[in-house]
Amino acid sequence: MSPIVMKFGGTSVADLERINHVADLVAAQAKESKGGVAVIVSAMAGETNRLVSLANEAAGSGLVGETFDDEYDVVVASGEQVTSGLLALALRKRGFRARSWLGWQMPMITNDVHGKARIEDIEGNGFSEAIGSGEIAVVAGFQGRSAEGRITTLGRGGSDTSAVAVAAGLNALRCDIYTDVDGVYTTDPRIVSKARRIDRISYEEMLEMASLGAKVLQTRSVELAMNHGVPIRVLSSFAPAGDENNGTLVCDEDEIMEKQVVSGIAYSRDEAKISLLGVVNHPGAAASIFSRLADANVNVDMIVQADARGPDKANMVFTCTQRDSELAVSVLTDAKEEIGFESVVVDRDVSKVSVIGVGMRSHTGVAKTMFDALSDRGINIQVISTSEIKISVLINSSYTELAVRALHTAYGLDAES
Amino acid sequence: MSPIVMKFGGTSVADLERINHVADLVAAQAKESKGGVAVIVSAMAGETNRLVSLANEAAGSGLVGETFDDEYDVVVASGEQVTSGLLALALRKRGFRARSWLGWQMPMITNDVHGKARIEDIEGNGFSEAIGSGEIAVVAGFQGRSAEGRITTLGRGGSDTSAVAVAAGLNALRCDIYTDVDGVYTTDPRIVSKARRIDRISYEEMLEMASLGAKVLQTRSVELAMNHGVPIRVLSSFAPAGDENNGTLVCDEDEIMEKQVVSGIAYSRDEAKISLLGVVNHPGAAASIFSRLADANVNVDMIVQADARGPDKANMVFTCTQRDSELAVSVLTDAKEEIGFESVVVDRDVSKVSVIGVGMRSHTGVAKTMFDALSDRGINIQVISTSEIKISVLINSSYTELAVRALHTAYGLDAES
Repeated sequence: MSPIVMKFGGTSVADLERINHVADLVAAQAKESKGGVAVIVSAMAGETNRLVSLANEAAGSGLVGETFDDEYDVVVASGEQVTSGLLALALRKRGFRARSWLGWQMPMITNDVHGKARIEDIEGNGFSEAIGSGEIAVVAGFQGRSAEGRITTLGRGGSDTSAVAVAAGLNALRCDIYTDVDGVYTTDPRIVSKARRIDRISYEEMLEMASLGAKVLQTRSVELAMNHGVPIRVLSSFAPAGDENNGTLVCDEDEIMEKQVVSGIAYSRDEAKISLLGVVNHPGAAASIFSRLADANVNVDMIVQADARGPDKANMVFTCTQRDSELAVSVLTDAKEEIGFESVVVDRDVSKVSVIGVGMRSHTGVAKTMFDALSDRGINIQVISTSEIKISVLINSSYTELAVRALHTAYGLDAES
Repeated sequence: MSPIVMKFGGTSVADLERINHVADLVAAQAKESKGGVAVIVSAMAGETNRLVSLANEAAGSGLVGETFDDEYDVVVASGEQVTSGLLALALRKRGFRARSWLGWQMPMITNDVHGKARIEDIEGNGFSEAIGSGEIAVVAGFQGRSAEGRITTLGRGGSDTSAVAVAAGLNALRCDIYTDVDGVYTTDPRIVSKARRIDRISYEEMLEMASLGAKVLQTRSVELAMNHGVPIRVLSSFAPAGDENNGTLVCDEDEIMEKQVVSGIAYSRDEAKISLLGVVNHPGAAASIFSRLADANVNVDMIVQADARGPDKANMVFTCTQRDSELAVSVLTDAKEEIGFESVVVDRDVSKVSVIGVGMRSHTGVAKTMFDALSDRGINIQVISTSEIKISVLINSSYTELAVRALHTAYGLDAES
């Protein structure tokens, strides 16, 4: 019998009233699931921020760096520890057998990159046996243990990854991620009022949605779920238990019957466009640029190369996050001679808008529909980037909402009112 | 080279300003101590209460019991975890090498009596090696790990015990317990304005002071220090570093030159007197009563047996804490038939007042002075209990202050004004 894994984020366990509601949801699931239940919890909303502030103040501003991250993890991981104990207590109050499991107890082995550790293994230390015996396991999310025996944390949103890792380790039936929204939408409902909840979405599409800024699920958790074939259901912890009209299943493409050509429209405002003008065009020019950026840990997204003033000079355009853009410029400027370019221009007034859908693979004309819709609204496309299941364009950020709305309508995603 | 152990209680690490002050005190000690420094910290003042309230609310009132204590420990132990990380950060900010050590990391092995676990062993897991290398060890007090790998706590005040256990394990030169008072006083200065700070006090006397409610040091920590010959210095964390006029040394009797007949007057209001009336007096009657109370973890203090209505019936009177008294009554009532008694009466309106001094061993008339002083004020003595270095009496609690003041004067303890 496979167990069910449930995960509750910070707003779902924000106070004892919410924790009691979560206990009710878990209790209902525990009565139903014959294979047992594991619950992963985040820190109570606001708690992680409070702890981070304390740690920042103790460490002193300007001194925060890698050598301090191990103690940050000690401070911050206490938040999930508290919630796991509280939920275990609330479940026992309801007459269930339950116990908390901290990262070091399972143990959830990670590498030692404190603050953004990656899970390497879940060792069996009686964990799955306890679940098999009918005891509800309440797991402190977001945390693990390094080989050196120190506490690690997985970085913001890491509780999603904890949940999927536990689900994979337990060979779970499903990983239910409870959050403050009732599923994944065709686009941001704050921009498009006619946005619809998606019933089923493939891992690949979800991955594009998540990495493009639809912040429902952490990217790494979707990757992990895809690699292990763990179906994820995203649903609202605010809905009553058993509400069928709640949630989105993230699963394998094959399990989705009615495939849309385009499943959703994503956007991201955290973009900067960096243009290197007059790059001496010789073999290895691109390598010379992007290896330097990689060494500086700048995450480059879209890349376009175009001829400029004849075949011996090119313009190289790429995008990265706004935070990384300053670093990128300084890294490139420092190596101006070696790379060989004339000037560098940064534009932080850009947004990326993307249409996503596995159906694109077998449909033509998807790009044409996008370009037409944007052109009709007079929106100029600055950069285009495509993948098998996604077309992204960079536009002036003041057109973001207009573009998203136009595309949502153009691909027939608007809900019938 | 023997290291120095320092311990800071909740008020000493109440906020980041106080934690920074503690970091200064530790830094000063670290520069001086050639054998290294280990620091034991409590939770920030108020934090343990906040966590206990959360746990109580989650567990639901009336349901708190032994089967919940393991999860209480998970919730509550997070408080010390946070402080240990913060102090490690504050020390690193000052340029020192420092790291936090949680109970499970050292590991501090305890039994599995959650909520009031006893330390069994400190296993070496690189802990003393780290201190020997010059790294300041910041230990989360109050917590340990059971053989089953669960978090345990040592009960309120347990950080003192953690500190002494660490000091004993490291064969430390001294264990400095920093608190919010500048030493041990002849009695509670809030009651007797002429109370004096004691320079040196023996373990035995301190033990009686502590167990009788002079809440400066936790009893178990003094026992442990005595057994391992660890000198404890109690001093104020609010005084500037190097203040010679600060602190009381708790040490072996032999190291105290000027011995007082009576060193101090202690009192405790947390007392309940339970009288079992008409107990069938046969061999094993007392054993039958007190083994049941021991099984229920009721800590019995004074015991008096008196004949009642002939030789076949006795009254058995004992005292315990107010919290335990309800449990004690219900345990005894459940076994009324087996034990064989007529009725049980509880009086929670009692206090215990004690005079303490190693000098009693070689002086006569100490008890007479006590009884005279109380009699002069018209205070009725309900129960008397004596040991080699202590005389305790149980009185109506409304006379507590009057009795303490009278005795402080009678034994010549008042400071010259």
